[in-house]
Amino acid sequence: MGSVGSEKTVTGWAAKDASGVLSPYTYTLRKTGPEDVVIKVLYCGICHTDIHQTKNHLGMSKYPMVPGHEVVGEVVEVGSQVSKFRVGETVGAGCIVGSCRECGPCKSNIEQYCNKRIWSYNDVYTDGNPTQGGFASAMVVDQNIHVKTNRFVVRIPPGLAPEQAAPLLCAGVTVYSPLKHFGLADSGLRGGILGLGGVGHMGVKIAKAMGHRVTVISSSNKKRAEAMDHLGADAYLVSTDEAQMARAIDSLDYIIDTVPVFHPLEPYLSLLKVQGKLILMGVINQPLQFVSPMVILGRKTISGSFIGSIDETQEMLEFCEKKGLTSMIEIVKLDKVNEALERLERNDVRYRFVVDVAGRRVEP
Amino acid sequence: MGSVGSEKTVTGWAAKDASGVLSPYTYTLRKTGPEDVVIKVLYCGICHTDIHQTKNHLGMSKYPMVPGHEVVGEVVEVGSQVSKFRVGETVGAGCIVGSCRECGPCKSNIEQYCNKRIWSYNDVYTDGNPTQGGFASAMVVDQNIHVKTNRFVVRIPPGLAPEQAAPLLCAGVTVYSPLKHFGLADSGLRGGILGLGGVGHMGVKIAKAMGHRVTVISSSNKKRAEAMDHLGADAYLVSTDEAQMARAIDSLDYIIDTVPVFHPLEPYLSLLKVQGKLILMGVINQPLQFVSPMVILGRKTISGSFIGSIDETQEMLEFCEKKGLTSMIEIVKLDKVNEALERLERNDVRYRFVVDVAGRRVEP
Repeated sequence: MGSVGSEKTVTGWAAKDASGVLSPYTYTLRKTGPEDVVIKVLYCGICHTDIHQTKNHLGMSKYPMVPGHEVVGEVVEVGSQVSKFRVGETVGAGCIVGSCRECGPCKSNIEQYCNKRIWSYNDVYTDGNPTQGGFASAMVVDQNIHVKTNRFVVRIPPGLAPEQAAPLLCAGVTVYSPLKHFGLADSGLRGGILGLGGVGHMGVKIAKAMGHRVTVISSSNKKRAEAMDHLGADAYLVSTDEAQMARAIDSLDYIIDTVPVFHPLEPYLSLLKVQGKLILMGVINQPLQFVSPMVILGRKTISGSFIGSIDETQEMLEFCEKKGLTSMIEIVKLDKVNEALERLERNDVRYRFVVDVAGRRVEP
Repeated sequence: MGSVGSEKTVTGWAAKDASGVLSPYTYTLRKTGPEDVVIKVLYCGICHTDIHQTKNHLGMSKYPMVPGHEVVGEVVEVGSQVSKFRVGETVGAGCIVGSCRECGPCKSNIEQYCNKRIWSYNDVYTDGNPTQGGFASAMVVDQNIHVKTNRFVVRIPPGLAPEQAAPLLCAGVTVYSPLKHFGLADSGLRGGILGLGGVGHMGVKIAKAMGHRVTVISSSNKKRAEAMDHLGADAYLVSTDEAQMARAIDSLDYIIDTVPVFHPLEPYLSLLKVQGKLILMGVINQPLQFVSPMVILGRKTISGSFIGSIDETQEMLEFCEKKGLTSMIEIVKLDKVNEALERLERNDVRYRFVVDVAGRRVEP
């Protein structure tokens, strides 16, 4: 890696086309600007979005594309004006590496809702070059000196193992952010987690750490043992069992709905208490439906939430350290990333793959 | 009217069948219980719900039925344990005259969401007798001594004219309650009012009194002058004008949606800023639709709200007195109530009929 002021050549694993197959790809990182932090990547989680992007499911993919947005690494260089981070620290980067700094959301430190946010990969940076993600030896990330908060680099607290921290940077904050924002972080609440994938499993963990009584809701009994025994859920509700559903009416303060395909909302609105909140996480382009009395007669809300801010990410990391929260991960080497992506696509992982990018771990 | 402890004979105007035509009807009020307040009705507003009930649009009407749930009157007798009200005071009663006192909503003073709430008419009281509403010479209303708040009688502040206060007891609190509950009462917000009927007109008035910049949204230009000149709205937006709608994207903190028939939600979700709130008021049994990214990418909420609590009603009355807020009403004599109901059914009123039940006003 070169000195401050020069471009750095790095190797990542990139998709070259919509097959989504990753292979080594060499490219340059921008010169380290005054506000930049250069991160040697140690671990990077794999999110379902990585598949959508590498396979061009959204029709907006540009290749070569180095995916990965749950990045944990070590600071190896800092720009001249960076004072918040120093070389050797363990830091993280998530889905967003830039925003306009001027709009309402940016000024309110919720830059994930900035219309000019810059994705950590498959986007164009302010210098006109493509952004590339965390399945690579290094990343350069802006650390805006003009805001008090860490933007867009977070500190990984010393009590969190770096590989454990990776999935928190997207899946973790995606659940933490709405619980905080919608006033659902108090101990003693009763929460539902609908769907038990990467985000759902983190939902159970974070809600439990907040002191909630957590019900996992699933369409079949298949995940009961996992939910109850492995993840520590308090209850398990089969949504296709009408008698079970009827008994659970009016019992939950919120439901985190992670289902990414069309589904009826009314059975879940019924499970909510008065003033309960249904929080949608799944991007579904087929219209969802509900009749208005379902929200009116009980002052219920249907809302959604999108990842979380860098502020919320930092707060969530510290919360997880304090609560001793661990994510359930399977670590794979970078050269096995294609296999991991294939397995993720058929939901064959409990619950998150983390790529050992720097090759720290010895093969079992 | 008899003394405490005896039943009282009163005359009201009742629907006798689903024609919804009202005619005089004599019935008895229950003996005044220890917690009861006997109200001589002075004025009673006419709400659209009165038409649905008298004409059995909901299939649950029982006859004879004396409608009216925006009741303002004078206390003429109080039960032995009533200490909050005294004879001669001007008081109000709204949609609800009873609730279970035991459930979560009751204990949280949001008894409008109690599953055992008792409607002020077309319902059955705890004594097994039908409840009858405010188009009658008197009502007996419980004033629960076990709660600090006034339940189910409110005090009409001296600065509010009784006829002006009537529409506040349903239409007024229906708008006030969600603005308060959903954190939308701060000065400086930008609000939209979709639909300009009885509730919508009150929405403009209350939002303006809160210091909001108010946009009335309507499907045509027909109500522009009314909205801008008579009600004091700040802007008028025609929802069928695509260019106007496009210019207004991302501009509103909330929309109070009073439309009582199926309509697309997405154009209105688009008008909301990040974290904006769409609040549904119209009971619509045809499913409403939206795609989830419309709420996710902006942390927006779709919610609903149902009248308001007695607590909120009292607070709203005092707010209206302080702000000098007046409703726009047309006063009719009780014997012209059928004509008023007919005109309301074809929306021929600006904006609320109030029945002069006690015959205070001389015909013009």
